[in-house]
Amino acid sequence: MAYCLQCGHQAEQKIPEGDHNLRLVCPSCDYIHYENPKVICGALVIYEQKVLLCRRAIEPRYGYWTLPAGFMEIGETIAQGALRETVEEADAIATNPHLYCIYDIPDIGQIYVLYLTDLQDGKFGTGIESLECALFSEDEIPWDEIAFEAVKRTLNHYFTDRQHHYNHNDFPLHQEQIAKDKSIKRY
Amino acid sequence: MAYCLQCGHQAEQKIPEGDHNLRLVCPSCDYIHYENPKVICGALVIYEQKVLLCRRAIEPRYGYWTLPAGFMEIGETIAQGALRETVEEADAIATNPHLYCIYDIPDIGQIYVLYLTDLQDGKFGTGIESLECALFSEDEIPWDEIAFEAVKRTLNHYFTDRQHHYNHNDFPLHQEQIAKDKSIKRY
Repeated sequence: MAYCLQCGHQAEQKIPEGDHNLRLVCPSCDYIHYENPKVICGALVIYEQKVLLCRRAIEPRYGYWTLPAGFMEIGETIAQGALRETVEEADAIATNPHLYCIYDIPDIGQIYVLYLTDLQDGKFGTGIESLECALFSEDEIPWDEIAFEAVKRTLNHYFTDRQHHYNHNDFPLHQEQIAKDKSIKRY
Repeated sequence: MAYCLQCGHQAEQKIPEGDHNLRLVCPSCDYIHYENPKVICGALVIYEQKVLLCRRAIEPRYGYWTLPAGFMEIGETIAQGALRETVEEADAIATNPHLYCIYDIPDIGQIYVLYLTDLQDGKFGTGIESLECALFSEDEIPWDEIAFEAVKRTLNHYFTDRQHHYNHNDFPLHQEQIAKDKSIKRY
């Protein structure tokens, strides 16, 4: 059961006139509650060839390792959101953001946008949503304890790309779809 | 005045515990109504060096020319959304989508993601949200009647880039911020 944000009347699922999708619509005031995909912005923060990971203190995937990332907010750019998340989750200043990975996850209405960044002064702490944060070299990555497919792919891209590129600004953009069945579709 | 989507009680603006932003929160059931930026997906559709534009049959900017573009929907990728909008607004099949422009418009909580595409068989019609659609060469573009800054910039990028690149897949990605004052900030 759902109610109208605008007038409080009980709302219903229907396809509005001229639309193709089911929406939550108010039969009393006709307000249509559009729900659209959400952008998750985050950072792959590098310091001396090591990657900054955060162990999640929240669900989903409590206790698993992730990149600093979260829902983009109104009033910020995608890059600003990625840097904000790095402060919040790792108490760290990410610098020189370079657009690196874009993942469509249509089944859950999410888009990940991840920036490759540097870590200012090599300093970090532990944000409120993290149990701990740490820098990992490639052979230290806890592959079986990575929280999300998007994080796993981004780490793999990085370790491959750095064999061919030195400057972060030369790293190629990866745009992929992540499906529920984890099949990969490249554009 | 706003009401809770979940229980219909009158909701209020407040900063939830552990948050930094004002949200619409229900004092009765504690439901938090998050509002996040929306993605607008669209296509710069090219046929024989000409650009497909649509004259808007809806507000805002009724009567002005735009690219086929609109709010991304849950269940589709960004590219799929761009192709869908091209069908809906110009009754045309866009093919070979190449990620081309990303604009952050933080003041209004929007992100534009535009693909450079081909036009299948050079065919198009007029979608329900358009007064008319047409192919324009560079010197025919109605610059004073373009609906949005994002559209104007994308057209400018295209006419510049095509002097240096032949194959659409070689066109560079443009990522910029559009501020209310229209100042340009490049990442």
